[in-house]
Amino acid sequence: MTDFNKRFDEYVSLINGAADKYVAEEAFEGRESSGLSEMLKAMAYSLKNGGKRIRPMLTLEFCRLCGGDYCKALPFALGAEMIHTYSLIHDDLPCMDDDDMRRGKPSSHKVFGEANALLAGDALLTLAFETVLSAEGVSFEAKAKAGLELAKAAGCSGMIAGQVMDLANEGKAAPLEDIKETDRLKTGEMIRVSCVMGCIAAGADKEKIKVAEIYSENIGLAFQIVDDILDVTSDAETLGKPIGSDSENEKSTYVSLLGLEKSAEYAEKLTESAKEALNIFGGEGEFLARLADMLASRKN
Amino acid sequence: MTDFNKRFDEYVSLINGAADKYVAEEAFEGRESSGLSEMLKAMAYSLKNGGKRIRPMLTLEFCRLCGGDYCKALPFALGAEMIHTYSLIHDDLPCMDDDDMRRGKPSSHKVFGEANALLAGDALLTLAFETVLSAEGVSFEAKAKAGLELAKAAGCSGMIAGQVMDLANEGKAAPLEDIKETDRLKTGEMIRVSCVMGCIAAGADKEKIKVAEIYSENIGLAFQIVDDILDVTSDAETLGKPIGSDSENEKSTYVSLLGLEKSAEYAEKLTESAKEALNIFGGEGEFLARLADMLASRKN
Repeated sequence: MTDFNKRFDEYVSLINGAADKYVAEEAFEGRESSGLSEMLKAMAYSLKNGGKRIRPMLTLEFCRLCGGDYCKALPFALGAEMIHTYSLIHDDLPCMDDDDMRRGKPSSHKVFGEANALLAGDALLTLAFETVLSAEGVSFEAKAKAGLELAKAAGCSGMIAGQVMDLANEGKAAPLEDIKETDRLKTGEMIRVSCVMGCIAAGADKEKIKVAEIYSENIGLAFQIVDDILDVTSDAETLGKPIGSDSENEKSTYVSLLGLEKSAEYAEKLTESAKEALNIFGGEGEFLARLADMLASRKN
Repeated sequence: MTDFNKRFDEYVSLINGAADKYVAEEAFEGRESSGLSEMLKAMAYSLKNGGKRIRPMLTLEFCRLCGGDYCKALPFALGAEMIHTYSLIHDDLPCMDDDDMRRGKPSSHKVFGEANALLAGDALLTLAFETVLSAEGVSFEAKAKAGLELAKAAGCSGMIAGQVMDLANEGKAAPLEDIKETDRLKTGEMIRVSCVMGCIAAGADKEKIKVAEIYSENIGLAFQIVDDILDVTSDAETLGKPIGSDSENEKSTYVSLLGLEKSAEYAEKLTESAKEALNIFGGEGEFLARLADMLASRKN
């Protein structure tokens, strides 16, 4: 097993363990009165139905890279993951994207009903701040700063602005700059703050925070472009859809605007820029470089 | 004009001024891209459609009483009001209480659509933490502690637990203890944390925080009981409904369980307990004593 895989697995294991802990039944002891347990189950269902755990992993690794104890950054990492999770629950609701499935399983409101899904999302959003602000062994300054950065990234000047713009883009052609701005806000801001919170946990200086921002902006955009490419290539393989069109809702994508080849080149260029920014960390930056490559070359 | 009225009006004016500022168009400059402005308008619509502003007023007055500069506690006060506001927007959604009206005006989703109402609620919840954690002239310790208390009070062990229990109580008879616990969580926790955050802003000791908790628990419960009484007496006056039943959804209330007279006595007793707790503040506690009386004797 390579060093990369070993560290990757260790992080995933730490994150999943912490996720289990924060929504364990014991965490809500004495609150299993009528109705409540369904909502708590809904919180756990989505938080444990883990995706790639990339955001919290970035928090842990940037903390380590900046000389901090990454275990102490776990609450910050989980805060980012809780916000990401709540946004997916609310995004799937009938009044939003109306998605019945999420990560191969029925979405929250299909299992627990709309009211529980709505409240489970609200509760995870709130729990994110509780988790960040109750981190142990971290200074009040670091907690207050991390919580503030998280709120800015998740709020109406960040992720939520991106969600609104994404809804507005449905079914219409949009120029490349609009798509990039939507993605920067909708997914990029949470990737950025995940990296930045790791730096804050380690008490890093502005120079390192700047590196975290450059790295995250590049991998964030590359991630979206690869998403679009995979949408098209897997559609082409499995559904026989014409390449380069998201014909379902006629939404503009990187592939529809740039074509498949140029999109792939663009993602590659962004990934290289992300890796270059890591130079100040020397050989220690290897894990994040490998992670950027892994995200760029992923097949799903 | 009495001292009470003068201070009351000054607080309302400060709170409304700050509310305007946090959701002013300038606060979101450069974000008026497609779709976004409707959601931002939805945030402003609900935050400015002010209720009594009791929660933020409690924050300011407890800060003053504990020797702090209450202007510095304004961000904490607004944080509580934003959480309260978001909870009303989400409560009114079709999948929750499905209310078309709020404070005499169409509810958020009737004006802006469900997606904008959902996201405006999410955005106000997030902005609450941004606001608390970016308070100027307040220590990192106070900001982190206030934010943590706010998250605990608003989350799945506080207000949201109460919302879930309230939905579960719909249409069925519940014992008095269940009703009290639901109210303690659904409305009481946010009233409690509003008081406590004022103390934290002033760097108050545990003794004063304990007083804030006793005062707020008593006025919080009294407030709910008076609500129930007003529901019945105004129904009786305007709709000719039988007194003592909330026949619309057969939900248990203080009045249906205790009767009108005993409910009024209970609210009065709680109000007296709230006022007694203020003794350690001497004559300075007068404003909060008057406020408790005002809430208990209100007619709407």
